[in-house]
Amino acid sequence: MGKNIFNQELENYFSTRRSIRKFADREVSKELLDSVLALAAKAPTCGNMQLYSVVVTRREECRRELAALHFNQPASTGAPVLLTVCADFARFTRWCEINNADAAYDNFLSFTSAFADAMILAQQITTIAELHGLGTCYLGTAIYNGPEIARLLKLPRMVFPVACLAVGYPDGEGVETERLPMEAFVHEETYRADSDEEIVRLFKAKDDYPANAQYVAENGKANLAQVFAEVRYPRAMNEEFSRKLLEYLNF
Amino acid sequence: MGKNIFNQELENYFSTRRSIRKFADREVSKELLDSVLALAAKAPTCGNMQLYSVVVTRREECRRELAALHFNQPASTGAPVLLTVCADFARFTRWCEINNADAAYDNFLSFTSAFADAMILAQQITTIAELHGLGTCYLGTAIYNGPEIARLLKLPRMVFPVACLAVGYPDGEGVETERLPMEAFVHEETYRADSDEEIVRLFKAKDDYPANAQYVAENGKANLAQVFAEVRYPRAMNEEFSRKLLEYLNF
Repeated sequence: MGKNIFNQELENYFSTRRSIRKFADREVSKELLDSVLALAAKAPTCGNMQLYSVVVTRREECRRELAALHFNQPASTGAPVLLTVCADFARFTRWCEINNADAAYDNFLSFTSAFADAMILAQQITTIAELHGLGTCYLGTAIYNGPEIARLLKLPRMVFPVACLAVGYPDGEGVETERLPMEAFVHEETYRADSDEEIVRLFKAKDDYPANAQYVAENGKANLAQVFAEVRYPRAMNEEFSRKLLEYLNF
Repeated sequence: MGKNIFNQELENYFSTRRSIRKFADREVSKELLDSVLALAAKAPTCGNMQLYSVVVTRREECRRELAALHFNQPASTGAPVLLTVCADFARFTRWCEINNADAAYDNFLSFTSAFADAMILAQQITTIAELHGLGTCYLGTAIYNGPEIARLLKLPRMVFPVACLAVGYPDGEGVETERLPMEAFVHEETYRADSDEEIVRLFKAKDDYPANAQYVAENGKANLAQVFAEVRYPRAMNEEFSRKLLEYLNF
């Protein structure tokens, strides 16, 4: 049987972890980062193919150029290290070609396998880094500006950024964010079709959360959902980036 | 600054963890599973939208039907619990609609955001479950047979399975698998275009790994790459499933 090493300290870590967007002026040593990356690579991977790569950006000029493609979010401009985690079927495909194997991985199914592999690795890096006292923040813009990031980092065909992690020593504790009650996302045996009344109930704590109420006022909207759908992640942006991505990936 | 709680016990866990495909005849209590799921939901999530759902399959008949869609892999037939982790923009979209917000999340960009969120959650569940002494195994077939799984689990539009985790108490220790050397997937500042000689070197330990050599012989192929590209993940399968998925998702 597996060994249960869970304890109160780990419970505290997992229950209180926060993303960090402000970093101390302190390097993350190559030795520490290498040990995090090496351990993270023991995470599960599809057929043990390791369909990922990580581009480590440390040099100031490179960080500045990369941060610009993340819309200069504070986490991207202030972190001493940016890790661009990529879905990568290029390395595996080239190995197949060298071995006269008929590789066919430039397609949507293979993209999803590599995407999953890269996200598993990204989250394993996040957990191991945070357990070491580092702070991290995902930059969702990795995918939005994927084609431009691919050009900057010289990613070849079949290598696509799916997550960027800002990593450094935290300056401050980060901001606590609310979560939906667990029954909102857990379904027993089959997916439960919630009534509108139930959805309203599940999101009520989120609607009522003080920081969210302030956010609604600042954006001049009637409610939080409108801030999300019409300001933060609006139709025109979603549809334009979708077209651009599908054109670039060309499945 | 963040607290460093990493120690030798965690190092041992992360460096020796293995996927488990054979489970003891022992239930995973609802209390334990709920605590794992609740903690996992503190993982990072895109804009705090929690674009995921988890369908918990415990009933024997349901597990049998679901396992069939995972090609009856041993991990799927023998586990007391199967967790189907789904990219889910349906709940959030319905909340927006109820609030008269112009939601536009039925597109490729939004799918990638929800995919990333769901994979982060899946890996967080994996880590927390394993730290509790549970064994887990990802079933990559979650995506392959996504449309059929969606029908079985009654997933509505904008809810799509991206990972299935078999969870239970381990029977045995699982099989150790080799990994590529770290320099194979870590790139400094920009992506390093490896020469063919370098790729051969990076994969050499994998080619030479005793279990892999046996695997090549059993499949009557010339090398490991051919087993992957022509037997395990062959062209016809990849291309057929890609077409089927793109048709179903209809971006």
